[in-house]
Amino acid sequence: MSKSGPLSGITVIDMTRVLAGPFCTLMLAELGARVIKVETPGTGDDARAYGPFVNGKSVYFVSVNRGKESIALNLKDDGDRDVFEMLLAKADVVVENFRPGTMEKLGYGWDDLHARFPQLIYAACSGFGHTGPHSQRPAYDMVVQAMGGIMSITGQPDSPPTRVGMSIGDIGAGLFTAVGVNAALYDRQISGEARKIDIGMLDCQLSLCENALVRYSATGEVPGPLGARHPSITPFEVFPTSDGHLIIAAGNDTMYQRLCEAIARPDLGADARFQTNPLRNENHDALIPELNTELSGESTDHWLEILDAAGVPASPINDMARVSAHPQVEPRNMLVDVPDETTGTLKVAGNPIKISGFDDPASRESAPDLDRDRAAILEELGVAQAAQ
Amino acid sequence: MSKSGPLSGITVIDMTRVLAGPFCTLMLAELGARVIKVETPGTGDDARAYGPFVNGKSVYFVSVNRGKESIALNLKDDGDRDVFEMLLAKADVVVENFRPGTMEKLGYGWDDLHARFPQLIYAACSGFGHTGPHSQRPAYDMVVQAMGGIMSITGQPDSPPTRVGMSIGDIGAGLFTAVGVNAALYDRQISGEARKIDIGMLDCQLSLCENALVRYSATGEVPGPLGARHPSITPFEVFPTSDGHLIIAAGNDTMYQRLCEAIARPDLGADARFQTNPLRNENHDALIPELNTELSGESTDHWLEILDAAGVPASPINDMARVSAHPQVEPRNMLVDVPDETTGTLKVAGNPIKISGFDDPASRESAPDLDRDRAAILEELGVAQAAQ
Repeated sequence: MSKSGPLSGITVIDMTRVLAGPFCTLMLAELGARVIKVETPGTGDDARAYGPFVNGKSVYFVSVNRGKESIALNLKDDGDRDVFEMLLAKADVVVENFRPGTMEKLGYGWDDLHARFPQLIYAACSGFGHTGPHSQRPAYDMVVQAMGGIMSITGQPDSPPTRVGMSIGDIGAGLFTAVGVNAALYDRQISGEARKIDIGMLDCQLSLCENALVRYSATGEVPGPLGARHPSITPFEVFPTSDGHLIIAAGNDTMYQRLCEAIARPDLGADARFQTNPLRNENHDALIPELNTELSGESTDHWLEILDAAGVPASPINDMARVSAHPQVEPRNMLVDVPDETTGTLKVAGNPIKISGFDDPASRESAPDLDRDRAAILEELGVAQAAQ
Repeated sequence: MSKSGPLSGITVIDMTRVLAGPFCTLMLAELGARVIKVETPGTGDDARAYGPFVNGKSVYFVSVNRGKESIALNLKDDGDRDVFEMLLAKADVVVENFRPGTMEKLGYGWDDLHARFPQLIYAACSGFGHTGPHSQRPAYDMVVQAMGGIMSITGQPDSPPTRVGMSIGDIGAGLFTAVGVNAALYDRQISGEARKIDIGMLDCQLSLCENALVRYSATGEVPGPLGARHPSITPFEVFPTSDGHLIIAAGNDTMYQRLCEAIARPDLGADARFQTNPLRNENHDALIPELNTELSGESTDHWLEILDAAGVPASPINDMARVSAHPQVEPRNMLVDVPDETTGTLKVAGNPIKISGFDDPASRESAPDLDRDRAAILEELGVAQAAQ
């Protein structure tokens, strides 16, 4: 499969494991970079052992490592270190998500790398970043979700602490790392300098929670969980219907008026308490029961048809089966085929970064088995394979 | 304040409103780009009217628009269109998050822009993207959170539908747009071509939910909400203590053994049912009550001290007050000062993309009042101001 994308010609040495780093390098691969996973011999990326499995192969792993190459190198072995350094010499970017200090112990800290491979951009994605008193502590997605505050604003007001259902701690950090790598690639073209990018998962949580943070710092009020309600827009939340739920997001006064017309409640549209968003937000507890009364009388599909026709943003609460079948998903190529000899063809999330002039093929290569690309990579480097 | 960063020298014309687009251009500004907001005369960005307010000024708006410039232009007025086009002629990137078709109606669709301003990268961030049958529908954060499936995996198993507490629909799309813009800037240096980037918020949700999607597509099982539990790692969830909760994230077998030692339950460490992560995941309902019994007997602080010493990743469930005071936040410069004449100095989330060789100052310029930079921009363009 030919690689085409803005990062075509870029080579990424990918030392990442599990999710945050691999999601970053997945985005780089989707943008056209060649991504070579350097894995621990024997076990490889920890995520190869994470379920669910199909015929013994982790689809967790396939989802975020499709389209990459794999070579297993023991970075404490001199011969393997030679191969690794030949890879670094030809690469543009190295990405890792070890605990800080690990690269230094291997002799591949930023100072060493930058001195020996001045073209090489180095991106590190760790729990707390490479500086500060917590730098050396271990972190996982769940740790930064709890520590960074996102769990304190997610959930029902009266329910136990609630995690964001996907790994926003990892995936968020992976995305910020991808922004940094791309910015550094641009900068290297201009300045001739390669940079170190130092991403901390906790830092990323603060950026993602910018609104709750400024709400606290400006007002002193500590935001709590609001269920499915927006903190500053009304009506912008979930409503029960006769057969389930739907959400309505009436983000401005026009939308609100359309909503009142659509549900045949002109009195609510005329009510002085509900004329502007700040007023509706203030009088939330007066407005919502009125809307509940109307909406709970009919089915979700009934209301969706009426609200769609009225131009009021609304949606059912889709599960993964429903979103997979959503009529916008296939035309946007957002579920791509991954043919795999072991698992059969999988459907995985496509690339949401659509860029003109580049292909967005309907299928992707699967994730490599551990060390799959050894022979080809060694041949390319001119290393005699018998020596390995 | 001098701008320093990988995008130093880059000018972004920012037509975005509310959150998804503004978060993208905030990242570009944090990376050193000059960002000029082009706003509707009179009202400007809708988010200027979103609370909370301090002395009448929206801190919602300040948080995501700090460090940008503002000029109010009526794009249906010939004189203002001239000014706008002079800006486009000198710019590198234009970003908008209108409903698809809006730019075409204004005469600034991609085909027109690309023909007239061949250097200009154009990034569009819309609800459903610029293609496909749902393209023209309105969307907000809440709509794509419901439609894209993230709400179906967030929340307690028995609770009403639960939104992610921050606007992951908007912020996620803003981040993917920022990745795309940076990749296109790099590519423009190589290929000489400017590209169109077409981001759909719904597409981004699928990418963020990649794990749940592949879980469904590979196994046919529809993932549901798990409270604060990880779907494939055990123990990796919230536990009640005598005075609250804490999370423990024992991501591999070593961590699990350390945990069992730390809580003085070697029997759990030796139990055949709990020897590997797949086994622990399978026997989750046997293991967790045992851990609950131990952990609920002492306070959160008690356990955090013990788990920290044992090297087991753990955390309290911090709210915004606690995370703001976290000892790693100030050393990482993740709450920066924004001096503002109206609101006083605000604390807002800093830049999580730390890049060597560039400043990360402890304060940022505030968000501009509407049209604040008109005179300076017109002078720079050599436009006689009397004519405006």
